[in-house]
Amino acid sequence: MNTEGKLSSLREIMLSQDIQACIIPTTDPHISEYTPAYWKTREWLSGFDGSAGTLVVTSDKAGLWTDSRYFLQAEKQLQGSSIDLFKMGLPETPTIQQWLVDNLKENDVVGIEGEVFEASEAQALFDLLSKNNLKLNTSFAPYCEIWQDRPSIPEGKVFVLSEVFSGQSVQERISILKNRIKTEGGNTTILASLDQIAWLFNLRGTDIPYNPTVVAYASVSEKETVLFINPRKLSSEVIEYLQSQGVILGDYTKINDYIRSFSKENRVVIAPNKINYKLYSEIKQYSTEVPVNVHPIDFLKAVKNKTEIENMRDAMKKDGVALVRFLIWLENSMASGEEVTEIKVAEMLRQFRSEQTYYFSESFSTIAGYNEHGAIVHYEATEESNAVVLPQGLLLLDSGAQYFGGTTDITRTISVGKLSDEMRKDYTNVLKGNIQLSMAKFPKGTVGMQLDVLARQFLWKEGENYLHGTGHGVGYFLNVHEGPQSIRMNYNPVALIPGMITSNEPGLYKAGQYGIRIENLLLTVDYKTTSMGEFYAFETLTLCPIDTFPINRSMMSEDEIVWLNSYHEKVFSDLSPLLSQEESSWLKEKTKAI
Amino acid sequence: MNTEGKLSSLREIMLSQDIQACIIPTTDPHISEYTPAYWKTREWLSGFDGSAGTLVVTSDKAGLWTDSRYFLQAEKQLQGSSIDLFKMGLPETPTIQQWLVDNLKENDVVGIEGEVFEASEAQALFDLLSKNNLKLNTSFAPYCEIWQDRPSIPEGKVFVLSEVFSGQSVQERISILKNRIKTEGGNTTILASLDQIAWLFNLRGTDIPYNPTVVAYASVSEKETVLFINPRKLSSEVIEYLQSQGVILGDYTKINDYIRSFSKENRVVIAPNKINYKLYSEIKQYSTEVPVNVHPIDFLKAVKNKTEIENMRDAMKKDGVALVRFLIWLENSMASGEEVTEIKVAEMLRQFRSEQTYYFSESFSTIAGYNEHGAIVHYEATEESNAVVLPQGLLLLDSGAQYFGGTTDITRTISVGKLSDEMRKDYTNVLKGNIQLSMAKFPKGTVGMQLDVLARQFLWKEGENYLHGTGHGVGYFLNVHEGPQSIRMNYNPVALIPGMITSNEPGLYKAGQYGIRIENLLLTVDYKTTSMGEFYAFETLTLCPIDTFPINRSMMSEDEIVWLNSYHEKVFSDLSPLLSQEESSWLKEKTKAI
Repeated sequence: MNTEGKLSSLREIMLSQDIQACIIPTTDPHISEYTPAYWKTREWLSGFDGSAGTLVVTSDKAGLWTDSRYFLQAEKQLQGSSIDLFKMGLPETPTIQQWLVDNLKENDVVGIEGEVFEASEAQALFDLLSKNNLKLNTSFAPYCEIWQDRPSIPEGKVFVLSEVFSGQSVQERISILKNRIKTEGGNTTILASLDQIAWLFNLRGTDIPYNPTVVAYASVSEKETVLFINPRKLSSEVIEYLQSQGVILGDYTKINDYIRSFSKENRVVIAPNKINYKLYSEIKQYSTEVPVNVHPIDFLKAVKNKTEIENMRDAMKKDGVALVRFLIWLENSMASGEEVTEIKVAEMLRQFRSEQTYYFSESFSTIAGYNEHGAIVHYEATEESNAVVLPQGLLLLDSGAQYFGGTTDITRTISVGKLSDEMRKDYTNVLKGNIQLSMAKFPKGTVGMQLDVLARQFLWKEGENYLHGTGHGVGYFLNVHEGPQSIRMNYNPVALIPGMITSNEPGLYKAGQYGIRIENLLLTVDYKTTSMGEFYAFETLTLCPIDTFPINRSMMSEDEIVWLNSYHEKVFSDLSPLLSQEESSWLKEKTKAI
Repeated sequence: MNTEGKLSSLREIMLSQDIQACIIPTTDPHISEYTPAYWKTREWLSGFDGSAGTLVVTSDKAGLWTDSRYFLQAEKQLQGSSIDLFKMGLPETPTIQQWLVDNLKENDVVGIEGEVFEASEAQALFDLLSKNNLKLNTSFAPYCEIWQDRPSIPEGKVFVLSEVFSGQSVQERISILKNRIKTEGGNTTILASLDQIAWLFNLRGTDIPYNPTVVAYASVSEKETVLFINPRKLSSEVIEYLQSQGVILGDYTKINDYIRSFSKENRVVIAPNKINYKLYSEIKQYSTEVPVNVHPIDFLKAVKNKTEIENMRDAMKKDGVALVRFLIWLENSMASGEEVTEIKVAEMLRQFRSEQTYYFSESFSTIAGYNEHGAIVHYEATEESNAVVLPQGLLLLDSGAQYFGGTTDITRTISVGKLSDEMRKDYTNVLKGNIQLSMAKFPKGTVGMQLDVLARQFLWKEGENYLHGTGHGVGYFLNVHEGPQSIRMNYNPVALIPGMITSNEPGLYKAGQYGIRIENLLLTVDYKTTSMGEFYAFETLTLCPIDTFPINRSMMSEDEIVWLNSYHEKVFSDLSPLLSQEESSWLKEKTKAI
């Protein structure tokens, strides 16, 4: 069935159920960023497979809203379909809500599937539609009917992440979580987020590519801790471990029944942006809701413990060794005139990483973008687009891995040959921003929005900018994007706390020409305590040389040069003991002071 | 009557009216920062005369809450009274609300005078007290009864600010305002803020020291524009001007009657933080409330028009000339061994300013703080504290003036003799922060919180900080502090727009030793438009040499030195034509490149 066929099946059911418009978001019942195939309804319907986008269908129109990362990809993938592309963030683009108001008439009904809709978004949608005399039906779920070959919910096996890696038992984590729930004024919580659940129960799995999470729900109350999961996913070893930690097992499909057994005595702590609308409305109906902006488990998960930090440092060494070997391979291949393509680059990088102990998988799909492809922020080479890397210009390489000891995420922009002066200037300005943020010192209570300018200031002076965040939280052998902190131009009230790991990834993109991004992971650490209180600093965790060839040294300040040289000293001293002599000499050369 | 006598009179009335606690804030019915003497109830009761503070009285306790600017002053002024000082912003200090909850019992009543309470604060107070089973009485106003010699509401004469200075007629302003009210979904607005009223009606007066405003209310609707003012304040000339602009005059005391004549058809745009609770509740009762976070008039007022900007540049020259003459006087007096005191400094500065054409008054009480007095952020020398300036250390001088063509606000920290290395380091770090903020370029939509770190970054590296904002909006021949924009560590969603004037005043305070602050006013201007959109920059308006003697040049970056030298070039070229030859040579020396 092609897109038009799918849309017309959908429209038939809409008509029969008196629904005038429906919204199909990207997420799943767990409000995941990446979802199992079963829930990729938007992708199946529209043909657009980027990681973010919302499809809206009326009786005669269809539109897909996505952000700047996916403008080019979506344009391509929607070509020939009747779906209009709406570029979010541009001044002329209406919001979905506005578009609905403009295209519907009084008393029309908008249908959504409450189970795959963020509760806070559904609530906001309801408020806005009501104001405009439109109705919302939150039980519109016709997709099993029209999606004949829909995949099934994954039944991948689950394994226990040993306390050697997690540094804490499940019992300890539950007990800390219970205290935090109490602090919030509750006595119960319902968890839907898969990374929250994986973290709390020391479990990992393979249900979602790149995210080693497990499809499940959980409930933690003073009385009991229940994990709702398909029993076929569990080995006897896992069951034994969970039971030894006081965890009761329930079936994945029984979470709603369980909530219906609550009473108003259950004061349930939930973050409305981390739970689906269906669960949310049942929690509201059958218990007392205690809404919070950030779920306490997200703070616990974001602040890494000592064991996690030590393992993370070790994972960074493994990642660094793999990257050095990859970079040597790249240099040699280019020198010998071998054909190097973007897909080959991604493959070789995975190859080198997979040779490291405790390697599990990639942490996201590698972005290897040569020259103009580097300007496509979330580019993934396909057989069709696959460019040959020639000895001129820049190769942007954004990649990461899951190790049992942590998640990595690194971007390097590599000069593969002759560079223009403009490339050098742009590269240097991006690097300066990265370094200035790395060197930041800040008082307790500082939020990411306050520091963001440090990474952007040199680009802004040129009238340049990048429309993605400067930094996102990074999980521990979990999702490569995790909250609650961020470093962005937008306000997020969560302060940076020692133990948090956040990316530092300024970039610059010249459409049709090249893209530049330099990304390291930063650990927030204590800096000093003075009469003005506690101050924090960043420790750069990532260990990999930053290409010095493109740098315009005259643009760098003294302190930036000092930082870069001392970073390179550390990269060499941490990695060289793990490298062959030949590799080590190569690294010595790449890390020499500028 | 001493403080104890006043408190016991108050407590008698509280007892008779069954009020268990009362809150006396600093503000007046117009939510002014500085209030006419008539409304200085908190000051009269407590004896503390700082510009910010809230008094809370129960049957057996009394507490005064104030912020870090006033910790030292409040401690001194409350000495010997039974009033406890609560230092806001310290972790151990309870909020007023928390303290009330802790000190009252169920069903106790808290009394406030709704007419002098910010509506949003009264609402928040009500919510919090309700949650804790406490009651709020918003009509507790016993102060006329106990305050025998209470001053009267000022009846100062009003004058028209010529359109030569304002650049717009009242008619134009009303018409623009009406459009903005419509955009907000309203058709009426009630104005209580005195600077809003002065701006809209091109009126100035003398009711409040330093703020050339006029006690009045106003209403603007599709039907009519009414200014509620004591008729005794108006000359026939002013009446004629207002009538020629289509303004109807009403009596100051009739605003409530007027609101009671509204119907639900009146959709009244109000900012709950710019209106008193009594008006607010009547607007809610008699009309349809359209609440906004920032009143549209505050945006109109903050973005200066061409005439205002030109006049402001001229006012800066006048201010600069006065400051240069003052600095020469200071240097000569110190050299000749004359006794220079803090009070004398403030007097001479006022003297030099008052010689300038279009001078009206000071824009706030001059802060002349020698050495340790400089560390008291809002210090004002008294006969008691008045220090003699000796030839060593630093003199912090924060002052400003009202000219018909604009409001100035400038801080210089002046070396009057030998300095320690620490002073030089601290001075240089403050100056670097000031310069980095001055040099910022930023995209449309940027808010002050994003830029604040530029001014603080060097202090944070030393574990230092200042607990006041980096920048506040500045009025045009109006209040020296005006919104809606700011540059602070706290989030304020208002973006910086071309035409806004904002201060840039990083500082550093070492209690008992010295204080450093360097302040210029910045005009937001267009910078460039690129494929990434509009970018803005700052133009430094203030014209006065920055003392180069304390600078540790080796700490300055190349671009900071370039900025400082080019700033000094501009100061010289703009001011020297207005100076005598002798003064000009002095300035040449003070502005020479470092």
